Amino acid sequence: MERGTKDSDSGSDKTKGAMNIEGYPVKGLSIAGHETCVMFPTLKLAFDIGRFPQQAISHDFLCISHAHMDHIGGLPMYVATRGLFSMKPPTIIVPKCIKKDVEQLFEVHRRMDQSELNHNLIGLDVGEEFYLRKDLKVRAFQTYHAIPSQITYTITAPEIAFTGDTTSDFMIDQNNTDVLRSRILVMESTFLDNSVSVEDARVYGHTHLSEIISHAERFENKAILLIHFSARYRLEEIQQAVSALPLPLAGRVFALTEGF
Amino acid sequence: MERGTKDSDSGSDKTKGAMNIEGYPVKGLSIAGHETCVMFPTLKLAFDIGRFPQQAISHDFLCISHAHMDHIGGLPMYVATRGLFSMKPPTIIVPKCIKKDVEQLFEVHRRMDQSELNHNLIGLDVGEEFYLRKDLKVRAFQTYHAIPSQITYTITAPEIAFTGDTTSDFMIDQNNTDVLRSRILVMESTFLDNSVSVEDARVYGHTHLSEIISHAERFENKAILLIHFSARYRLEEIQQAVSALPLPLAGRVFALTEGF
Repeated sequence: MERGTKDSDSGSDKTKGAMNIEGYPVKGLSIAGHETCVMFPTLKLAFDIGRFPQQAISHDFLCISHAHMDHIGGLPMYVATRGLFSMKPPTIIVPKCIKKDVEQLFEVHRRMDQSELNHNLIGLDVGEEFYLRKDLKVRAFQTYHAIPSQITYTITAPEIAFTGDTTSDFMIDQNNTDVLRSRILVMESTFLDNSVSVEDARVYGHTHLSEIISHAERFENKAILLIHFSARYRLEEIQQAVSALPLPLAGRVFALTEGF
Repeated sequence: MERGTKDSDSGSDKTKGAMNIEGYPVKGLSIAGHETCVMFPTLKLAFDIGRFPQQAISHDFLCISHAHMDHIGGLPMYVATRGLFSMKPPTIIVPKCIKKDVEQLFEVHRRMDQSELNHNLIGLDVGEEFYLRKDLKVRAFQTYHAIPSQITYTITAPEIAFTGDTTSDFMIDQNNTDVLRSRILVMESTFLDNSVSVEDARVYGHTHLSEIISHAERFENKAILLIHFSARYRLEEIQQAVSALPLPLAGRVFALTEGF
């Protein structure tokens, strides 16, 4: 490695090209199976790291929802690259059940290349909270995929909830009321139409848009950002599906379509 | 994860946008500290995996020069994504001294997400060879960086040599004559000008272009592809430095400048 000098992500570029959702610039990439990383640059907070898109480097806080490769694959590269640029060690929140494995992942890399890979690793069980700063805390809540634990972020009222990959069951979990009343809900909607049935979506551990429509009354969120669409869909199909959403969803649902 | 259906790298796109060097299309990215992946699509052979650029997926054979993150970081993602698309398990050649660590890297990911991550992992010591197919073998040779062992690829005469990161000492190693007479030499040239001295380049474990000029008489290669330039340089500076090369280098040196 050679110490880097190019910082393509510095200064005013951080929110360039971002969507604006409820006052937060939001950037990222989320394509099912390929990579998912959703960034809130003004909070310096990213959810999942995907393949470590370059813009993620400026985010001091990273919440990992689960360990599927398309959500966690870029983690060592994220930490290494922040070290390369002498940026402060990032704080990384992971489900407690994978904390030891994540530690070993970094240990293996350290053994192989004698690097430091400095970071603060925090494991959270469902219901546990961690303060990123005085007015910024994260809380893990239950979802329903291969691995539990996703992250909600709170100031005083719940601000942002991020579901990671999950079946729609998270919507009816009595303990998840905060998720359904967070100001912004970032929620997967892997499947959009009849090419994949609701039943198959459930088998795969994912959510179908028609389930979101069925549960529409439950969402008290001011804005909903849909992510993690299947790569089978074209941009126009995603846009059309979102614009066709009925009330009470219409007008407050966004779609992360970067890369489609 | 969701099984992928988008194959942006299929069919005739594989050599699109490639440089043509001695009859081989060559693609890739190599920016010091950021990522290095150099691909020979018609051989289905890649050297180092960087952050796993998408086009690398179609390469069945991968030679890893050393374990610095910018050369190996995308390895788990490469194997996972080939699995996602039901492609055959790739053959991965690594320096023998890191083989156990690479195995553990995959083990950690398997534990975290219950994935298969099928692949064939081969460790080579300096001087050892491995046949990728009947007419295609790789041989590891000594270089001089944090971790030894880089890879040369041979048919009958040495065809392609790839140095990974190294000081210029590999050029005067008596055992490396095959490297200096391979048809194509892919060689790092991290530093180009007086902004970094030759002495500092050596301390960092890298090569300075002026050393390549000093040793010009040694290179019997038909073509030399320079990679791994420091991110401090602008595209024009690289192009100017290469076009100013004196004989006997002039006219046979290429530069991999994708991403600059």
